[in-house]
Order: sequence, then C-alpha cells, then structure tokens
Amino acid sequence: MSQLFKPRQSVEQVEESADLAPKFDADGLIPAVTTDWASGELLMVGYMNAEAHEKTIATGEAHYFSRSREVLWHKGATSGFVQRIRELLVDDDQDCIWLRVDVEGGASCHVGYRSCFYRRVPTGKEFGATEVDGRIDLVWTDTEKVFDPEEVYGDAPNPTIL
Amino acid sequence: MSQLFKPRQSVEQVEESADLAPKFDADGLIPAVTTDWASGELLMVGYMNAEAHEKTIATGEAHYFSRSREVLWHKGATSGFVQRIRELLVDDDQDCIWLRVDVEGGASCHVGYRSCFYRRVPTGKEFGATEVDGRIDLVWTDTEKVFDPEEVYGDAPNPTIL
Repeated sequence: MSQLFKPRQSVEQVEESADLAPKFDADGLIPAVTTDWASGELLMVGYMNAEAHEKTIATGEAHYFSRSREVLWHKGATSGFVQRIRELLVDDDQDCIWLRVDVEGGASCHVGYRSCFYRRVPTGKEFGATEVDGRIDLVWTDTEKVFDPEEVYGDAPNPTIL
Repeated sequence: MSQLFKPRQSVEQVEESADLAPKFDADGLIPAVTTDWASGELLMVGYMNAEAHEKTIATGEAHYFSRSREVLWHKGATSGFVQRIRELLVDDDQDCIWLRVDVEGGASCHVGYRSCFYRRVPTGKEFGATEVDGRIDLVWTDTEKVFDPEEVYGDAPNPTIL
C-alpha cells in the first residue's frame, strides 16, 4: 500500500478526519464518478485501483483501471481527450471518488457522444403512460456524436462487455 | 428477470438501441450516481438490484439496495429526504445509472452534510506543494451539517463499513 493512503481504522477517522483512507473493493477497485467542471454533466463512471488513484492525484490527470483490458488507463492516451482534474473529492465512507474535470476536446464516451449518458429511462408518471406490458423504450437526450469512434480508435476492440 | 429489462444480446443493442438492458454485476447490483437536479452537485453513489431499479422507474422515487443492511432501501424512508427523479439516464454499456433528483429537505448524507462529498484531495501541483512524505491531508469543501444525524437516525447502526 502506498504512503498516500492511510489504513482504515475507525468510522470516525474515515468520515470525519483529514485522512485519505480509500476503500478498495474485493477486486482492489474504487468507483470514480467524473463530471464536467463547467457544465456539471456526468461524463462517465470508471474504476481505479490504488496505482490509478495515486497517479491521478500526483499528475492531476484522470487515470483509471480498465476492467475490460485489465490495465492502467491514462484517459485520453488514445483519443486525446485527457481529463484535467479541477477538483477531486471523496465521499463520507471513502468508497467512492468524484472527479470534476476539464476535458480537452470535450468528449468522454467511446461511442462518440460528449457524455456516456445519452439515453434516459421514462420514470414515474411517464413510465405509467408509456410502458407496454411493463416494457419501455429509452429516449435519446443527445443525438449528436462529437467524434467518429472508428477514426479515433480504429479497430481497437470495443470495451463494452455483455 | 423482470419484463422491464431486456436480455443483453449485442454491443450494438446495448449501446445504440432503445432497449433497457442493464448489466447487473456478480452480486446482482448496478451503481447509481445521484446528482442534484438544480445544482448539479453529486449527492451520493448507491447501488441497485433489479428490484430497486424497477421500483425507482415505476415510482419515480429513488430506491437502492443497501449493501450494509442487505435490504431494499427507499431513500428517505427513515430520514424523510426522499429523492424525486427528474431524469434517469443509462450509460453507453448500461452498467451504470445516473439519477437527477430533487431532494426534499436537501440532504443526502448520513453524516449530516448536504452531499456525501464534503472533502477534497489536493492533486497535481497542489499535491506537490502540500505532500509530506507522499502523504496529504483532505480539505473540507463543506463544513456545515444541515441536520443532526443522531436526531434523525437515533441509535441506528452507522452504515459505513471499514
């Protein structure tokens, strides 16, 4: 374990002290939520292992652990869409990280959209009004791709795991 | 599996179609990122099992699966801080959900803060300037608790797991 992270010793320490004591899960990962500094938009949710977390803190650029490729992943190394950290926050029990970033080029989604979140699910009354046999259709909130994934990634394998 | 969720059949279906085909992990859970509709602030990250996901969609109020208590958790049932869904989005590969909510009473964190994310980690140049032997102190971004956890939760066990 790095010097950077302190051992988790008590609820009070984790929730109320200045100790950085992240909780990595059974796979050694912690989820990281990444939002756009200017717009507040949720760009992506990734995972970090201890190395990725450390590199993110030390460099000020987002590093993740790619679960599909099982490697340290400097976001933007391939696409150029580097995420510069404006603010990195931890949650109360330190099992989650929030990255507020500027993205060079403005895209974060391998499908080509600005954000990974480009479809919404009708809920509540809208669900009631549109469901058919308990099923619903997703609704696009963004229809404009900001880059062509084929141009950027070529024939690299799609990271989506079924 | 509910009628609501379609089987995951292809990358194209998951990424580019109107099918709601969420990926639940080995524990049957999917992470849900919850932000404040008005301010965009990240309030919390929770987890949903299929039942919680369905109830959230059908009722328009956030339901999670409590990993510490191992029960369906209607957020706000104890504290009164119900989260009303304004928009529920899915990400490209549908292994994550984004809830944009209005919170009655305005608090989401069991420690008493408005958001679970009330401390930041110095990164990049600030990290370089403030680290001591590779260690850093967290910095508070919010110091004002909006409620007294003891009053609201009484002697209920703290959900934080070390």
